[in-house]
Amino acid sequence: MSRLKEVLERIGPLDRAAMESARARQATLTKPQGSLGVLEDLSVRVAGITGNPAPEVKEKLIVTVAGDHGVAEEGVSAFPSEVTLQMLYNFLNGGAAINVLARHVGARVVVVDLGVAAEVAANAAADAENFVDKKVGYGTANISKGPAMTYEDAVRSVEAGIEVLERELENAGQRRGVGTGVDIVGVGDMGIGNTTPSSAVVAFVTGEPVEKVTGRGTGLDNEGFAAKIKTIKKALAVNKPTRGDGIDILAKLGGFEIGGMAGVMLAGAAHRIPVVVDGFISGAAALLAYELCPPVRDYLVASHLSVESGHRAILEHLRLEPLLDLNLRLGEGTGATLGISVVEAACKILREMATFAEAGVSESEKVR
Amino acid sequence: MSRLKEVLERIGPLDRAAMESARARQATLTKPQGSLGVLEDLSVRVAGITGNPAPEVKEKLIVTVAGDHGVAEEGVSAFPSEVTLQMLYNFLNGGAAINVLARHVGARVVVVDLGVAAEVAANAAADAENFVDKKVGYGTANISKGPAMTYEDAVRSVEAGIEVLERELENAGQRRGVGTGVDIVGVGDMGIGNTTPSSAVVAFVTGEPVEKVTGRGTGLDNEGFAAKIKTIKKALAVNKPTRGDGIDILAKLGGFEIGGMAGVMLAGAAHRIPVVVDGFISGAAALLAYELCPPVRDYLVASHLSVESGHRAILEHLRLEPLLDLNLRLGEGTGATLGISVVEAACKILREMATFAEAGVSESEKVR
Repeated sequence: MSRLKEVLERIGPLDRAAMESARARQATLTKPQGSLGVLEDLSVRVAGITGNPAPEVKEKLIVTVAGDHGVAEEGVSAFPSEVTLQMLYNFLNGGAAINVLARHVGARVVVVDLGVAAEVAANAAADAENFVDKKVGYGTANISKGPAMTYEDAVRSVEAGIEVLERELENAGQRRGVGTGVDIVGVGDMGIGNTTPSSAVVAFVTGEPVEKVTGRGTGLDNEGFAAKIKTIKKALAVNKPTRGDGIDILAKLGGFEIGGMAGVMLAGAAHRIPVVVDGFISGAAALLAYELCPPVRDYLVASHLSVESGHRAILEHLRLEPLLDLNLRLGEGTGATLGISVVEAACKILREMATFAEAGVSESEKVR
Repeated sequence: MSRLKEVLERIGPLDRAAMESARARQATLTKPQGSLGVLEDLSVRVAGITGNPAPEVKEKLIVTVAGDHGVAEEGVSAFPSEVTLQMLYNFLNGGAAINVLARHVGARVVVVDLGVAAEVAANAAADAENFVDKKVGYGTANISKGPAMTYEDAVRSVEAGIEVLERELENAGQRRGVGTGVDIVGVGDMGIGNTTPSSAVVAFVTGEPVEKVTGRGTGLDNEGFAAKIKTIKKALAVNKPTRGDGIDILAKLGGFEIGGMAGVMLAGAAHRIPVVVDGFISGAAALLAYELCPPVRDYLVASHLSVESGHRAILEHLRLEPLLDLNLRLGEGTGATLGISVVEAACKILREMATFAEAGVSESEKVR
């Protein structure tokens, strides 16, 4: 718990001076003021996050966290649980969507086993440089019958996420020879059945009805969908989490990978790195991070609006506007990669554009 | 006219076989079917555009077309006309937003003078490799008093755009040693005052009221905004364009750069290259291209939804869904660059992801 506590205490407010300075520079660049909309706002926020009035987004990292879910035995997913492990190997072999999109935006992918219900580390593929073994358990328990994990394992999950990011910062910092070696981190998930615990977390934290925050996941039919809603309601009734205690909510309703992602987010905020949240599952993790430490919210960038119906409730609760709306519902960090590219573009605008004075361009008559 | 006619006749339907093949491949990739939403659809459309079932987006081009507008003398812009030329030099020097964003996505920028109201070619900066002199006139005439240009100059504007893209295809093809040297083209504008002719074109073509399709451009106050609406209504009343004659609409209400952009779009479609349209001004050009040849629509990708209020009417008329909504209103092709990156990502997903069989991943139980 001490590691978690340390990180929570380290998360402070945004750097207002850096934001003012970034905003002032935006006003001098050769474009009508505000004409780059969200890109301008993003660059100012990243200035506040990093404390750098002209932040640079070079080293990009995606952390994809995997875990299994006991509740999958209730038939809440269109895919069998074995797919979590299979997809993890696919990530390590570079064949998954997250690999393709991470290459596209120039991001490194780190794959973490927080709770896959099988031996991963034993496999040859797991020797890969981009694999981290942080297994807390072999899948959670079935939340429709009792808690997902113990309180201690919930703490362990969050701390595992913190350790993953801190190790990456250290390694990358050594490679680059500067203090913090990662400029931005995107967070994604893999776990068959994990929309079910996520919907449970979202319903509990936001207070929205289960029906409103439950979707069809990877592709349930009507019957499966009705059963899923029933399962989530049962999980809430059986477990009765403690309001305001993020760890207890995670322990009762969550998943190992959800806790791990919350840990990555908290560590990102503690180290003043923008954290790009992917879709619904990482959104549920963001809700838990926010329960643990509300100021973390300012460090989170919502990459996209997922098709998964509860995602909007998450973003409204966190008061975050998604950058993209491309009908994605894959997870893995796929939406986060595209979001990272937008944040990078925003920061380049701030750093690289010529000012009116430099370019000899007349300013607006209304402004002069 | 013969060059234009030739291009119009060359624009055919999408390649359905390539689209079917792309769609079939999408279904074999290691993700739930449809879970990458718009990215999947985009890849299928690019397959249909190019006739390649696994299209590749490597050589990326932005064509930014500049022109001045006689109607600027009515005070319809917050910036003085001299800014068109100043910004053109800024483009050539690499300091503008379009340069920064094009570098970000790996696109080459070609800057075209279609109708700047000053000598561009005489300036040293205009020796730049990425400048093309296609001047049809020194700014259009004031459309609130009569036509913007002659019918012949309207044809010349569109043909100039065609020539620009065809020259680029030829040059790039020689560099790459393959037939068509450009895989995707984005189209953007520069021209102080050009939201006024664009709103006039949009109101006329879509039949929407002028008030609904007129915005504040680079930043008009209330008084200036009311005067702008009056000016546009006058332009429509004075000029009475011929319905269904895209060239006449361009001649009466348009701008040289708007015609040039329409030409680039038509040439892109004729050569089976996806054309990424930027915002409101290039959207008005897209409407004219569509008036000249409705099948061009299938080759157009709407990169973003502009803040400029008439943009939605354009996209609805063309039945195009914007990829992004980032409150942009700059033009230059800035939104198109980000759109190009999304199209590239979509095509990489189709080409580079592992299939279920290759990765040894179990398929959905509902699908099997």
